[in-house]
Amino acid sequence: MDPRIREHAEVVVNHSIGAEAGDDVVIDAHPVADDFVVALHESLADVGANPLVVRQRTGKRFRRAYLRNHGGEFELPDHELALFEAMDCYVAVRADANVSEESDIDGDVQTAYDRVRQPLLEERLGKTWCLTQYPAAANAQLAETSTEAYENFVYDAVLKDWDAVREHQAQLATLLDDADEVRIVSGETTDVTMSVAGNPALNDYGEANLPGGEVFTAPVADSVEGEVLFDKPVYQRGREITGARLVFEDGEAIEWSAEKNEAVLDDILTTDEGARRLGELGIGMNRDIDRFTYNMLFDEKMGDTVHLAVGRAYADTVGEGNERNDSAVHVDMIVDMSEDSFIELDGEVVQRDGTFRFEDGFDG
Amino acid sequence: MDPRIREHAEVVVNHSIGAEAGDDVVIDAHPVADDFVVALHESLADVGANPLVVRQRTGKRFRRAYLRNHGGEFELPDHELALFEAMDCYVAVRADANVSEESDIDGDVQTAYDRVRQPLLEERLGKTWCLTQYPAAANAQLAETSTEAYENFVYDAVLKDWDAVREHQAQLATLLDDADEVRIVSGETTDVTMSVAGNPALNDYGEANLPGGEVFTAPVADSVEGEVLFDKPVYQRGREITGARLVFEDGEAIEWSAEKNEAVLDDILTTDEGARRLGELGIGMNRDIDRFTYNMLFDEKMGDTVHLAVGRAYADTVGEGNERNDSAVHVDMIVDMSEDSFIELDGEVVQRDGTFRFEDGFDG
Repeated sequence: MDPRIREHAEVVVNHSIGAEAGDDVVIDAHPVADDFVVALHESLADVGANPLVVRQRTGKRFRRAYLRNHGGEFELPDHELALFEAMDCYVAVRADANVSEESDIDGDVQTAYDRVRQPLLEERLGKTWCLTQYPAAANAQLAETSTEAYENFVYDAVLKDWDAVREHQAQLATLLDDADEVRIVSGETTDVTMSVAGNPALNDYGEANLPGGEVFTAPVADSVEGEVLFDKPVYQRGREITGARLVFEDGEAIEWSAEKNEAVLDDILTTDEGARRLGELGIGMNRDIDRFTYNMLFDEKMGDTVHLAVGRAYADTVGEGNERNDSAVHVDMIVDMSEDSFIELDGEVVQRDGTFRFEDGFDG
Repeated sequence: MDPRIREHAEVVVNHSIGAEAGDDVVIDAHPVADDFVVALHESLADVGANPLVVRQRTGKRFRRAYLRNHGGEFELPDHELALFEAMDCYVAVRADANVSEESDIDGDVQTAYDRVRQPLLEERLGKTWCLTQYPAAANAQLAETSTEAYENFVYDAVLKDWDAVREHQAQLATLLDDADEVRIVSGETTDVTMSVAGNPALNDYGEANLPGGEVFTAPVADSVEGEVLFDKPVYQRGREITGARLVFEDGEAIEWSAEKNEAVLDDILTTDEGARRLGELGIGMNRDIDRFTYNMLFDEKMGDTVHLAVGRAYADTVGEGNERNDSAVHVDMIVDMSEDSFIELDGEVVQRDGTFRFEDGFDG
């Protein structure tokens, strides 16, 4: 076994979820990641935690078979809910045999299924959790790299000094925490403002997401105004949405289009009312993620990018008294900020063309 | 996909567990059986049941990694128990990548782990469940056949007219139900008697076990007397026990030996007190299982055999007022009854050299 697989498992168990003796852990993983799941069992045994492996989120071939044969009256399964209620920690491992496995599921069926299962998602997000990546061949293919190059890419991004990351990113988190209004401008195509007043800015240094490398918060529900062109592709439901453009008024997307797979964007945005509002503003700061790989876990952390998610807001990012955007979906979309772009906090530029105010070479 | 895979899934869902709309189903399966798990999802979707796939029982590589790294103070995981408490049906799929995957786990560690987890087993057995087989290459290898021949063997045994089986076997079930004392004699090496008074005889026609094909009950706890040579091998914990010989007095094995892997037999019989008592007497009646395949799910159903299990008795086989043998283990072992053998019920021969009283050619 590649020794980095065991190092990765140790980071998940000891840093990301910080598992302790007696913790009941659910691992959701596809069998292409079996080596990593073995390593997770070794690390969880070391601390005396109790793992159970499921194939739910990662059981895409099963879910496709199920959804294509089901009559459509879905219900919340008691046994899955009981499992999630009783667990302490949840580890989801991204790794696929075929990233397009879900590409021929009917969008309405998928939406109905997701909507009914929303309490499961809420329960999971209320626990200590970690989403990470195993460098499977299909994911390398999606990234248009060899498997070996992809392994190096993943482990370089994952096996980092996460304490140093935390310190560097804290500088932006403090600025964002102190700010009320955010404005994001990129070229002629993106100019959007939103309030983040009262909503805490979180510093992501490899806990719930591994790799980490972003600072993020939630926009105030009705405050988003303006238009955004998401110039990086969005990979959802086995298909690639490119050139997504959304126009916001009073916090809601009132108009949208996409160059490719607009129907998938339609399905997402019409899931429920919350799916047309923003649940997250994130600023990518991980410059070791040096290429776009069609994988949001990495892409949203890239340096010189900003991402906005339609749908559900993370509870931790919503301040007391502020409304939390609720939805069955949470879909991140990325704006490139490396050229002809800036971020303003309360009218003051804090990033221009990808360089922050607290970094060398900043040209305010 | 081999069309027999989908037929097999339909038998499991519609006959074995009889799943209905809203049933919460747990499927425990190794990924070598993924085609079958896909087919199960199709059939479960047809009836509107809710599947969740786990890799616990079948996660042998994970369990090995866990048990070899764990300090040894095991505990019952709340999340697994909650899952089993909330589920309606359980489907365990036998299929391996390597049947010897658990062969280098320390016996004491395995025993301690099994003992702590006994409530999970009880919970599972209290639900509607089915144990079945997918014809994976490693299981074909264990059976010393090609994979294609093994596929034919498995599907011939599984895709049967289970109503006809039920009717044929009911003749023996009635005889056994009416009897108090059973005597089993084979050659010079096996002569054992036991009471079954008050314990119901069950007719297995492909529900909890698929394939089915036996009639079974529980011996009365303290009644077993005599000696048994199990002349078919027992495959346990990745190793083959051959020539196991047990001597019973007042229901308890007071002496035992084996030609090969006696240490594994030791581990099993010293798990707890109940592990030295019999929990099951079964009579194999499925003559379509025409060869021994080192797989108890099939072997115990072979025509012309009897099997005795040390350890836990099934609740359904213990009559009111009779004691139920309790143990963390349940290990079946087989006696060949095809030659120089007979079964007596209350002093009357009901089977000689493999032929039953209600069959042509019986020579009482």
